[in-house]
Parts: sequence; C-alpha cells; structure tokens
Amino acid sequence: MTTDLQARSINALRFLSADAVQKANSGHPGLPMGTAAIAYTIWTRHLRHSPRNPKWMGRDRFILSGGHGSALLYSLLHLSGYDLTLDDLENFRQWGSRTPGHPEYGHTAGVEVTTGPLGQGFANGVGMAIASAHLAAVFNKQGHDLLDSYIYAIVTDGDLMEGVASEAASLAGHLSLGKLIYLYDDNRISIDGSTDLAFTEDRAKRFEAYGWHVQHVEDGNNVELIDSAIKLAKADSRPSLILCRTIIGYGAPHRQGTSKAHGEPLGDDELNAAKDNLGWPREPRFYIPDDVLTFYRKAVERGRELEADWKMRREAYARLFPELGAEFNRRILMNKLPADWESALPTFPPDAKGMATRAASGKVINALAAKLPELIGGSADLAPSNNTMIDGSPSFQKETPAGRNFHFGVREHAMGAILNGMSVFGGVIPYGGTFLVFSDYMRPSIRLAALSGYPAIFIFTHDSVGLGEDGPTHQPVEHLAALRAIPNLTVIRPADANETAQAWKVAVAHRNAPTLLALTRQALPTLETPAAVERGAYVLKDFGTPEIILMASGSEVSLILEAAQKLADEGIGVRAVSFPSWELFEAQDEAYRESVLPKNIQKRLAVEAGVTLGWERYAQSVLGIDRFGASAPGKVIFEHFGFTAENVAAKAKEL
Amino acid sequence: MTTDLQARSINALRFLSADAVQKANSGHPGLPMGTAAIAYTIWTRHLRHSPRNPKWMGRDRFILSGGHGSALLYSLLHLSGYDLTLDDLENFRQWGSRTPGHPEYGHTAGVEVTTGPLGQGFANGVGMAIASAHLAAVFNKQGHDLLDSYIYAIVTDGDLMEGVASEAASLAGHLSLGKLIYLYDDNRISIDGSTDLAFTEDRAKRFEAYGWHVQHVEDGNNVELIDSAIKLAKADSRPSLILCRTIIGYGAPHRQGTSKAHGEPLGDDELNAAKDNLGWPREPRFYIPDDVLTFYRKAVERGRELEADWKMRREAYARLFPELGAEFNRRILMNKLPADWESALPTFPPDAKGMATRAASGKVINALAAKLPELIGGSADLAPSNNTMIDGSPSFQKETPAGRNFHFGVREHAMGAILNGMSVFGGVIPYGGTFLVFSDYMRPSIRLAALSGYPAIFIFTHDSVGLGEDGPTHQPVEHLAALRAIPNLTVIRPADANETAQAWKVAVAHRNAPTLLALTRQALPTLETPAAVERGAYVLKDFGTPEIILMASGSEVSLILEAAQKLADEGIGVRAVSFPSWELFEAQDEAYRESVLPKNIQKRLAVEAGVTLGWERYAQSVLGIDRFGASAPGKVIFEHFGFTAENVAAKAKEL
Repeated sequence: MTTDLQARSINALRFLSADAVQKANSGHPGLPMGTAAIAYTIWTRHLRHSPRNPKWMGRDRFILSGGHGSALLYSLLHLSGYDLTLDDLENFRQWGSRTPGHPEYGHTAGVEVTTGPLGQGFANGVGMAIASAHLAAVFNKQGHDLLDSYIYAIVTDGDLMEGVASEAASLAGHLSLGKLIYLYDDNRISIDGSTDLAFTEDRAKRFEAYGWHVQHVEDGNNVELIDSAIKLAKADSRPSLILCRTIIGYGAPHRQGTSKAHGEPLGDDELNAAKDNLGWPREPRFYIPDDVLTFYRKAVERGRELEADWKMRREAYARLFPELGAEFNRRILMNKLPADWESALPTFPPDAKGMATRAASGKVINALAAKLPELIGGSADLAPSNNTMIDGSPSFQKETPAGRNFHFGVREHAMGAILNGMSVFGGVIPYGGTFLVFSDYMRPSIRLAALSGYPAIFIFTHDSVGLGEDGPTHQPVEHLAALRAIPNLTVIRPADANETAQAWKVAVAHRNAPTLLALTRQALPTLETPAAVERGAYVLKDFGTPEIILMASGSEVSLILEAAQKLADEGIGVRAVSFPSWELFEAQDEAYRESVLPKNIQKRLAVEAGVTLGWERYAQSVLGIDRFGASAPGKVIFEHFGFTAENVAAKAKEL
Repeated sequence: MTTDLQARSINALRFLSADAVQKANSGHPGLPMGTAAIAYTIWTRHLRHSPRNPKWMGRDRFILSGGHGSALLYSLLHLSGYDLTLDDLENFRQWGSRTPGHPEYGHTAGVEVTTGPLGQGFANGVGMAIASAHLAAVFNKQGHDLLDSYIYAIVTDGDLMEGVASEAASLAGHLSLGKLIYLYDDNRISIDGSTDLAFTEDRAKRFEAYGWHVQHVEDGNNVELIDSAIKLAKADSRPSLILCRTIIGYGAPHRQGTSKAHGEPLGDDELNAAKDNLGWPREPRFYIPDDVLTFYRKAVERGRELEADWKMRREAYARLFPELGAEFNRRILMNKLPADWESALPTFPPDAKGMATRAASGKVINALAAKLPELIGGSADLAPSNNTMIDGSPSFQKETPAGRNFHFGVREHAMGAILNGMSVFGGVIPYGGTFLVFSDYMRPSIRLAALSGYPAIFIFTHDSVGLGEDGPTHQPVEHLAALRAIPNLTVIRPADANETAQAWKVAVAHRNAPTLLALTRQALPTLETPAAVERGAYVLKDFGTPEIILMASGSEVSLILEAAQKLADEGIGVRAVSFPSWELFEAQDEAYRESVLPKNIQKRLAVEAGVTLGWERYAQSVLGIDRFGASAPGKVIFEHFGFTAENVAAKAKEL
C-alpha cells in the first residue's frame, strides 16, 4: 500500500464504494472509482460543512447529481463523521438501511437533495444558488457576509444530456450565479457504450454560450489540477463548469473505461485485481486505514470551528442590525413563520360574479407577501396568466438579487427542480406557476418533491377545459387524476376566492411536503358557506334531508349548488359537498369523514371537469371528461360536455 | 395598397391571421405578423408539397413549432389550396371548426404535427428528419432519390428554452441531420416581457456547439435574405438554424415589439391602424386580393407536377429494382404491414422459472424485426436494460443511416417527441425504451401521441418496486395509474412472455394511436393458459365455482394464481383474471366484459404493485402500494408490501 496519505484517502473512497456494491451485489462502482479524487478535493479542501450539524445554515452544499454513485456519497459521509456508520455502508441497498440505492433527502443525514433521476440534482443546485444569492442580498451587510454558500456538484454525462439541466444551466448563466461550481465527470462512457454513440456536442462551448465560466482538467485523478480549477471557479463571478477528464471504474483492470464498470458489481476477481492494481489490501472488505479515517474526521472539528466562527459573526451582526438579526433568527435559524402570518390572509365577501381562482390567488400572494418576506416565486413565462407577481418587488436578476419575482423562462421542468432546490435550501418559501397542462413538463420534479418532502408550492392555473379556445393541447383533463396518484403530494383545487385563500394557508403551513394548487382561468362565484379547505371536503349545504350527495371540486362546485337547488325545488333532499382535496380529506378522522359522506347515503354523484379516474372511491357515479378537450369558448365546451346544472340534476336523478 | 404582389402576399398572411384572432376574440396575432415573410419564403420558394394530396410521401414537411401562431398556418393552408375554407378561418377557435387554437394533427389537412406545447414541434421535426434519412438510406439508389424530404420549421424563443428541444438539437447535431432547416423567430419577446428577463444565452453559439450550421438574417421581413439563407442551409450537410431577427406583431403601431402583441387580439382600433400602416384595406375583414390568391394557389398545380414527376421516377425505380420497388410500395405508399407478419410472433412454452417480460420483449422485437424491416427503435441510453436492441443491425448513425438501432442518449423527453415525429412521417414503426419511472420525463410527448393519434410504441421496463435495490427514485408506483389516465393511450402490462408477444402484436397493429408496454425487470413464470391480451382481461382459471374474483396485471398475475390455489385448497371457489390492459378491456362488448367479471360476483380483489387509484372501478378491494417504494432486493420489498400468496389469500378471505 502506498504511504501517500492522499492517495490512500482517495482509494478508501473507491474501495469502500466498490466493497459496498459488491456486498449488496447491486449498484454502481464506476462513478465512485472514477471521481474519487474530485470528491476528495471538494470535501477536504473546499467544502465548508459541519458533520455533526448537517443542517448548519452557513455550510456549502454538495450535490451528487449522478445519484447512482451513492456509495461515494455514503463513503464521504461516513468518513467525514456524519451520522452514518460502517454498518450502514455494509447494509448498502438493503431494506430499512440508511444507504438506499440512490441518495434520499430526509433519509440520510448530509444528503442535501434526492438524486438519481438525471438532471434533477444539477437543477436543484441552481435553485440553491438562487436561494443563497437572494438571502445574501436580503441579509448580508458590508463586512458581514453571513450567507455565502457555494454549491458544489459532481455532474455526469447523463445530467448534461437531460433537458432539465440545459434549461437550468441557461438560467444560471443568465443570472450569473457565481456560487455554482460544478465538476463534470467527463468519462466518455454511458450505459449504451461510448458517448460517441449519442453525445458528441462541444459541451464546453455550450456552457460558454450559456454564460458559464468553463475550465478543463485533463486528469481527473490529479488533485492539484482540480484544486486549482476550483480556486479559479471561486474567483469568477459566473457559474463554473469544470470538465474533468476521468476514467469510469478507475483501477479495475478489465472494466475501467468501459460501460461494464457503470452499473454492476465488479465481481470478486475484478475487485481484488483493482485493489492489487492500486495497492490496496484485498481484505478486509470495508477497510479504512486509521490515518485515513483520522484525516477525514478532521472535518468534524473543522466544522465546529466554522460554526463557532459563524456564531460569533452572527452575534456581531445581530448587535449591529437588531431588526435584521431578529429576522435572520426567525427565517434562517429557526425556520419559523411569523406568529400572526395567517392574519394576512384575505377573505372575500359572497359575490355571484366572483373572480377566477387564479386572480384570487394573485391577491392572496400579495397579501401574504407583505407579511412573509420569505414568500418568493414566479412563473415559467406566464406571470400575467398565472397571477404570480408580487406587486412592487423587483425581479430577481443578477443586479437585483433581493427581488422576489422570478422569471424562469419557458422552462417548466427547470422551474420545478429549482423550486425544489430553493425550498430545501431554507429561509425561503418558493412558489412557481404555469398552466396545469404543463405540470407534465415538470412532473419528474413534482415527484421528487413529494418523495423527498420538499415544501415547494406549485401553482397551476387554467385547470380545465374551461380555459376555452386554446384547445386540447392546453386543456388538462387527466392531470388532476395523474397528480393525485403521486403519494405525499397535496393537491388542492379551490372552488372560489375564499377556498383559494385557505388553500394558500395550507400550502404555506405545509413545510415538510409539497402542495399543489389547481386554479381556474375563468371567474367563479364567491360562495356563501364558510370554506373549510383544511378538512379536504366539507358540507356546503344540505337541501332538505339528503338522499343524494353531490360533490365537486373547483369550478364545478357552484354548478352542483345550482343543480342541488333544482333538485330541492323538485322535493329531492340533496347534500352539496365541496371537495377541494382528496389528500386533506383522507387525513381526517373516520368520524369527520363519515359526517361529510355518511355510509348510509350511497347515492352520490361526483362532478369534475376532468377524467373520472379515482372518483369511484367516493361516488357511485361520476360526471367527468374521459376524452381530450376541444377548442371553443369555455362555456360552450362546458355545455357540450354536459357541465350544466340541468344535466347534473338529471344525472343525479338517474341515481 | 402597395402594388408589390410579394408585399401584399405577405400582408395577406398577416391580416388573415389578425382578422381571425380578432373575430374569435382570442388567439395570438404576434407570431403570424412577425414571421409572415419567413413563412412566405418557405412556402412559395422552397416547400415541395401538394395541397390536394397532403399526404404525398415525396413532400417536404413544415412544422409551426410555436403552435400558438396557428392562424398563420391556417392562412397558409387556405391560401395554398388545402382543404380549409375561408369559412374555417372565420370560425377560428370555435366548437367543431377545423381551425382549433393550436394546430392538431389528424384534425386539419396539411397540419403535419400537433404543436402548442413548446419544444415538441422542434423535436418532432428531428424525428421526421431521422425517419427521412433512414428511409433514404434504405430505399434511395444512385440517381434515384425518391426520398429526400426537407424538414422546415418556424421555431420560437419558447421552443429554444425548452429542454426537450435542447435534447433533440444535441442529437440532431450528433447525427448531422442535414435536411433539418429551422427558422428561428428571434423577436426578443416572451410573455413576461423582453427575453432579457430570462433568456440571454448566446443561442447561435449553443447551436454551433451542438454541431449545427448557424446563420443570421438581420431582417426577418427581407425575403431575399431569408431565401439566401435557406439556400445555404440546403447546401450544408449539418442541420441548420437560421436566426431571423423579427418584430413580434409587425405592423401594429402600438403593440409591435411588445409582449402585448403576443397572445391577445389587437382590438379593432389597433388592427385598423396596422392595416393603415401596411397599406391594407380595413374592410372587408378576411380580405384576399385576387392576384394574391392566384399566386398562392399555384401551389396546387406545382404540387401536381411534383407528384407526377415523382410518380415517373418511382416507376423507373420499380423497374430497375423490382424487389425494393415492391417494398417501397408496401411500406411507403400503402403503409401496410406484410400479410403474414403475425406469424413471426414467438410463443413460449409454460415454464415455472420463465423470464422477465423485458427479456421476452427483446425476443419478440428480434423475431418481428426479421419480418418487419420498418420496425426500428432504441432506448434512452438503457438498451441493455430495456432489451431494445435488434441483433445484427448497426446503429443508426451519420455514417450508417440504414441502421435500425437508435441511441437517443439520456434524453427521454426528446426520445418521446422524436418517436412521435418518426411515427407520423410514415414508412417506419418506431419504438423507444426507458424505465417506467422515467415515463414522467417524456410525459408531454406521450400525451401528444395520444391526443394526435401518433402510432409510436413506448417500452417501459422496470415496471414496479420489483426492480429492487435502485430504490424509490427508480421505482414507479403511481405511473400505471397516471398513464391510464391519459385518454386514447393503450397501456399494456403483460403477465408473462406470451402476453408480451401478444402485447407487441397489439402495438404493431395499432396504427392510429400510441401503445405503451410496461415490462418487468425480474423473471416471471410463463403461464399455461393461452393468453388473450387483445381482450384486455380474460379468465386464467376458475378454481371451482367462483365466489371471489382475483384480478391482477403483470408480475402480480402469477401471485393471484398461487393465492387462488391456496383458497381453492380451502374449498373456496375463485376465479383468477389476468388484466393486462384496461383500455383493451373497455373496448370489448358488454357481453364479453360480463363473461369475465360477472355482476353477480362482487367479491373482487385487484392486485397490482402500484397505487390503488382507479382499480375501484373493477374491484371492491385493492392490494396495492399507496406510498413510495424502498431500496432493497425486489423479493424483500414485495414481502414487506404484502405481495405474497398468503397475504393475497388472506385479503381475499376478508371479502
């Protein structure tokens, strides 16, 4: 074994990872072995972090965007003194372990974001850099740079090929997010084989075109070259991409540099040969030389020092700027909402004409924004349609990073992943809007928010065929069902302005998972019954003694009220239920659910301007739209699809 | 009014479009007015087409990727003599019209692809260029270039910002698709305002980095400059991007060059002022000068001549190459499958060990490939996992365009849109694969395939938590439900190798809509009962006189068979139903459906390793997974989630 501590420290990453993959008989040795020197350089020479306090807000962030290399991250976390044991490493990819196949936020201390689906980590980092730049602009004072996190990532060929990363990279360049430092594992290998098969573009030139600072490291195993490049990256005001020429599966004599090294265990023979090759003992597996562990574990003490220094600087700051200091305390350290934030929520008087729920949402955003400086957001180039602008605040731009209005461009997917990154950074409550039909464009990011518990707020307007003339390409029909299918995602479709305000209340309060609002383009009456969105579903009105229940969400709620009145006029007892959110309703206790939907009333009709899928669990019959929409004025479409009080009443009578 | 026929011909496009938008009181005048000269140049100087035979296979293709400018396309189609009347234009965006808000393939003659969701048209064109290049390589002979279609598109800022277009552009550059000629409406305006807000990258440089030929036209109203650029583009072997500096809403004195011109009617006053400004009579609306119509309508006669010439060349070709000529006739002209293609489908003997359905799919692909030269496809860099390779065929690459194996790279979204473009081009039956969880990445393209009736085949392997250790980021749970929610999409999840072969039979035969196959990573027993996938669901076996029905799809089918046997051993009568496809089952007549799921047996349990959403329509109880998965070996996960014969039997007994 080499006596060079650095070489052995890097090899420890390689072989802890390869051993974990081998023991699990599953996983990806190629990335850890190929990028160990890059990870070593970032983690031991640059990354400011505190392993015993992984959530320390002064830390830099590290993202392994190629999450399939998770064993590398787990090795780094264990070696650096995070709450991850050697046992955890030995239980890589096993039931109940803290070392799942791909890194999961919230599951393993020190994992900043969930990665695996390619491109997401890349774009999450852009969100973090945005949050960081915004908070720095809000809080930092000359000589008091409390917030100056760098965002490091190891990114892969797959990340660079994914559209979401292209979108995010373009925006990062536009915004000149100088704290972003991405090291690209340029190994020229993907699963199908050489990148020559499909990926021969000039990557450096592309990123230059985005406005990035681009450097080349010719040998991705050379710590000094990597270190110098990172130093230059830090000194540059643009986001940085450092192309590091690496060898996938470095060290494995028969597999390195081939796609065979990517996604399967090396096998005992090749693993042994790799260890021989790099001067590492074959046994024991999971071997960590004492001096290597001691070296990495210095991160613990260094972290404590960084924290102590930060605390001192924070205290000085709080003395000089008491008001900002208190706000810093609330937003950044305690991550708490102001005590009386809910008082800012507007209420709307009953009004037959009413307003579109997107318009109501715009009003709520502005009312809340005054009370909640952490509420920031924007739209994927549909701000005037999504009503997402905070009046009186500038745009978040390179020159105005304190601005609270975000222009994501026509980049829905990047918006989703950026919102995730912002939300998990802390100190901000981000929202982003587009049309509901384009939730499809950002669905992988919505899924990751739900899986990881990112508290992002997704605003989707134009939520049905009611949007009218733009036609079926723009009319969501299957989207509510498809979004409700995602576990841990709260979907709310408010029926009027007051339900919209309450939906926002739920969304803002909901700090451990994402919330999604589906809002209308068209005006809806403001109803008389006090709303109860937090309950998911509630009785709007009983017309006589109910024999039938009509239930609906969003724009169809006023329709069932009208229909119920018609039925009541004919002497039929009807209950009208507003049903803005399945997930919130399911979270209620049995007694409440029974009180709204009593088992003894099985004659139930659900009405929603979308596919019927899933409503069967609540209703015997569903009036929905099990086809694509059509281009015509919204009212005309509703009529053609049977969304009239007459037809609802007729359908109810069929029960 | 100017006497210049060309200027008036261009203005006719502008004002037909603006009048249509004005009359509908809805739509987008900005793009048509800004790009009229570009469209004019393409359509009157370059595009080879035949308005009276819009499907003529020798034609070039034109895509309006910014589909919101639909009025421009409809104006072009009407003026050029397609089956689209002035009445249609006057009924722009109205119920039942042939002029919906965004162009829809199959709905309006001459619309090559459905556009509107940005980036899709851009990527569809790449698919068309791929199909064109492949077919040219297969059929063309020295001196007999029957297939040499150019693919023209007008693309917008929004298209260039979307990730799907970035992915497709990178692949187009890699493949050097020289027939692609994209004219970029570089108007510097998006909905939020100036593109300076979010889109300041060096677009020309980015496309150069992709390997494109890039040109600038400084005045997007200058026909000669545009014409010269197109000529140079044709002469270049790379895909071409021509950046045309345009003015959105050109001519409208108060709105041109602003985001106000983008997406709302000009209003009568501004429309009149624009007409005054460009020397156009205010009235009548929808005015077309006779000589302008005569000029555009020459396209009809020119089309006939092009067709006649092509026919002559085709006949000469058929004489010289009779075998290829017959194949050309079948694949290209008649678009028919070989008479006995189904005989190529393999059958698999019952086998308790069996094989993964992805492996079976690989065998079926190869068996079919021998009989169906039009079957071509690949994977988004997961070929070894998706089993999508056609053995013995080279890759489709710049140097080997006759190759049938496609490497899409880690670009799922572009793959989806490219498959759509290929499928609609004709002459090929394209398929593409990735993991089921990544169907989310390409969902907007899957939706458009369903909406438009593109006969693409989507292959999604690793279709449940059964994939094992890769964990929840890679384990689909909500995806089957979310995909079944899409109207007009046939989702098939076969239970074994024979069902897989039949699923492929359905997919290949299904030429007017997309088909999706969900396949396992893990091995499944090959069952004894003859499969009946075309029926959607069928009785596998009755154990005694059924009191209970167990139903399942895919990997859970062998599980319910086991459970049914257990129940039968206890003297309980059970029916086991294999349920590979809801959509195919719904297409059966009432009698058949009743024969499989008789109304008098309401004790029904559905078993599927995914969210329960929607199964309620068939079963009283559902054993599913209403949470995200976990990282562990697949069998361990199945056990933990209750997917064991014992638990299925126990759940059934609860009924």
